[in-house]
Amino acid sequence: MTLSALPRGMKDIDQREMAIRLWVNEKIRNSLRKHGFQIVEPSAVEHLETLEVQAGHDIKNEIYWFKDKSDRSIGLRFDLTVGITRMVASNENMPEPIKVACISNMWRYDEPQFARYRCFYQWDVEIYGSKGAEADAEIISVGIDILESLGFKEFEVRISNRKLIEGFLQSSGVHDQVQMENIFRIIDKKRKISDEQFVKELKKYRVDDKQVQRIVNFINNVGKPASLLKQIKESLPHNEKVKEGLDELIKLVYLLQIRNKVKHCVLDMSIVRGIGYYTGNVVECFGKGNEEIGAIWAGGRYDNLSKLYGRDRPAVGIAGGVERMILSLERSKLLPEGLAQTPMIFVASVNEEVKEGAFEIVDALRNENISTEFDLKDRSLGKQLEYANRMGIPYVLIVGQKELKAKKFTLKLMKENKEEHVTIDQLMRKLKKLDT
Amino acid sequence: MTLSALPRGMKDIDQREMAIRLWVNEKIRNSLRKHGFQIVEPSAVEHLETLEVQAGHDIKNEIYWFKDKSDRSIGLRFDLTVGITRMVASNENMPEPIKVACISNMWRYDEPQFARYRCFYQWDVEIYGSKGAEADAEIISVGIDILESLGFKEFEVRISNRKLIEGFLQSSGVHDQVQMENIFRIIDKKRKISDEQFVKELKKYRVDDKQVQRIVNFINNVGKPASLLKQIKESLPHNEKVKEGLDELIKLVYLLQIRNKVKHCVLDMSIVRGIGYYTGNVVECFGKGNEEIGAIWAGGRYDNLSKLYGRDRPAVGIAGGVERMILSLERSKLLPEGLAQTPMIFVASVNEEVKEGAFEIVDALRNENISTEFDLKDRSLGKQLEYANRMGIPYVLIVGQKELKAKKFTLKLMKENKEEHVTIDQLMRKLKKLDT
Repeated sequence: MTLSALPRGMKDIDQREMAIRLWVNEKIRNSLRKHGFQIVEPSAVEHLETLEVQAGHDIKNEIYWFKDKSDRSIGLRFDLTVGITRMVASNENMPEPIKVACISNMWRYDEPQFARYRCFYQWDVEIYGSKGAEADAEIISVGIDILESLGFKEFEVRISNRKLIEGFLQSSGVHDQVQMENIFRIIDKKRKISDEQFVKELKKYRVDDKQVQRIVNFINNVGKPASLLKQIKESLPHNEKVKEGLDELIKLVYLLQIRNKVKHCVLDMSIVRGIGYYTGNVVECFGKGNEEIGAIWAGGRYDNLSKLYGRDRPAVGIAGGVERMILSLERSKLLPEGLAQTPMIFVASVNEEVKEGAFEIVDALRNENISTEFDLKDRSLGKQLEYANRMGIPYVLIVGQKELKAKKFTLKLMKENKEEHVTIDQLMRKLKKLDT
Repeated sequence: MTLSALPRGMKDIDQREMAIRLWVNEKIRNSLRKHGFQIVEPSAVEHLETLEVQAGHDIKNEIYWFKDKSDRSIGLRFDLTVGITRMVASNENMPEPIKVACISNMWRYDEPQFARYRCFYQWDVEIYGSKGAEADAEIISVGIDILESLGFKEFEVRISNRKLIEGFLQSSGVHDQVQMENIFRIIDKKRKISDEQFVKELKKYRVDDKQVQRIVNFINNVGKPASLLKQIKESLPHNEKVKEGLDELIKLVYLLQIRNKVKHCVLDMSIVRGIGYYTGNVVECFGKGNEEIGAIWAGGRYDNLSKLYGRDRPAVGIAGGVERMILSLERSKLLPEGLAQTPMIFVASVNEEVKEGAFEIVDALRNENISTEFDLKDRSLGKQLEYANRMGIPYVLIVGQKELKAKKFTLKLMKENKEEHVTIDQLMRKLKKLDT
């Protein structure tokens, strides 16, 4: 190991990547703001118990945790939902619903894969204190708006309901909660495994041939919301869970219709979400043509989690990986060209004597919010131009004694390989126009 | 411990605090951009060796470190300079100087104090690849601009030079590097201890009475740059270090003068910085009247650190704590009033039948980038108004059947307790004007 190496699965964010992230984050933040979500950030470090109570003791194997110097077990957050829920649960005075969001990093001790690191960023939106499908529809709406504001056009929001599937499994003879959750986990990974493997895994959990066939038939129900609802309604078993789940789905689909969002949505009975805590409508969003990247965002209703942290408050939320989103944008060629943090202009000095005059120009440009660079290495004019060129700075202003006296300067347009002669006022107007 | 508690020294950032942070970060980011600094983020997790090589093995006691599941010792970053330096050192192809910045969090296992947490945010600016005082002056300029853009008027940039002080100590008979660094550490904390304590601590490191007196006399040199330079020049000992340090200071002061920044600056020979790695000009900035909060930002030249990570590249940088900055802003009453993430308008529905019409209005407002909220809990109009009021939402639009037909709506101005009658176009124009 050299001292310049990073631990496995960790990465730096360089200038170019940060330019993309700043652009993406700004779009997400604006979408959150429009929708009335307020940004928060829960602590990055939690007591291990706080993490375990949501995710089970096995989570220890998948996260970064350690004993601190007082021998307390603490862990780095592995998602944002747990921390936000704990944080919101500790506050009883907020008017409900509480609409909060976060864009931040988290750590998981996974095996690093392509575009998957051990530290990564997610955006996360949550609504606490509203039981109704109105909140589910609002969460889906902000998810859709985030994608649209980033330029995505082709994506599909796949919706299902945990209660509906639980009721269906109950009617198929699955009554044991542990067996139920294991079946959910297998359904959740169906897309990633072969049909044979799928059947084999189900059978591990005491699911017989007949049950397998029923499950396969059920989770193959995929279609536009109105027609699929009609189609499954007749074939669904009659029990309390199914009725509740169906009502939640019907209400959600109605709201998505009147909110004009249903065009992006399908019902897909294979959507169950792997994690145990979901209790109602669940949702996963995929970019068309980028399905192999996995869901761009996903989530659902989880009405019981808040209780673990001391307050009974229904909740619904979704989260999406920032790195994964950027990968989708790149593959779909949706990233604006030339996203960079490159300065707009380099003010070059012909010699030492003009430096004071050059500084005045630099200050004036910066005061107009124009990103301005100048020589920090006492270089010749030729070397200064070479630097500006290598940095990709589009404009270079040449400052010499004659120019300072005449108050008229040569402006080099580096990409066009052209020159113009401008006063400082003309230059400012030109650059400010380009900047917006 | 309840499950909702956080580990000692950790905190969440709530909606109100985040509103302040978003405002502060935006100001800082704009200042960085204007000055041509590009934002990056080094990994939050480093090999323990990477952190130790800069800070020494004792750093283990002051940071969060642990063995990962492969028995590798890793640690959470305790500052941004180390990570950025390691990151930049690993890249040989960047045109120099490399101007980078970061606004991010870090972790230290300190004893929590007032406004001091075990996880906190800093902004950090660094220039790599420029040996000259031009880079030092640029770093000080961006530090001044950040403060000015946040509204600070009364602050003092205190400047000194490590070589100068080293040379002075050499001439006073201190030739052992360990003794030298211990003396630096004592000088660094002089402000926080009594004069007696100061003398006592110096004597621990074999400093005799005469030397103490010389040191005290020297570090009491504080004054406006030009006059102080004149004053100390005559009394300074003649050796190589003193000459180099003085040259660096003279060059820096000259550049600050012609860049019109010197009005904020004083030379202060008691500024040495505690950390070992500084090699040239060093600087600490204090808010007037808020000196007891500590430096708002501080830093200096550290030409040798990059070598530890495999590349010989001179460097200069400063960093400032975001929490400390916010505290200074609060104490100086410089935070804009009403910084919040509160939505601008609540669209209230009189009953179920008008919901579709209300959604259209909500969408239209959001499409115009107006932060818009509506009912997610199926509440009566009275309860909706109560919620909007408790949330501090300044405008409520009442949507009923009559209003939808007439395309004219009642707009409640919650703070003024007034009403207006507006079309949606009029509403949009009004709110967009307020938003900018």
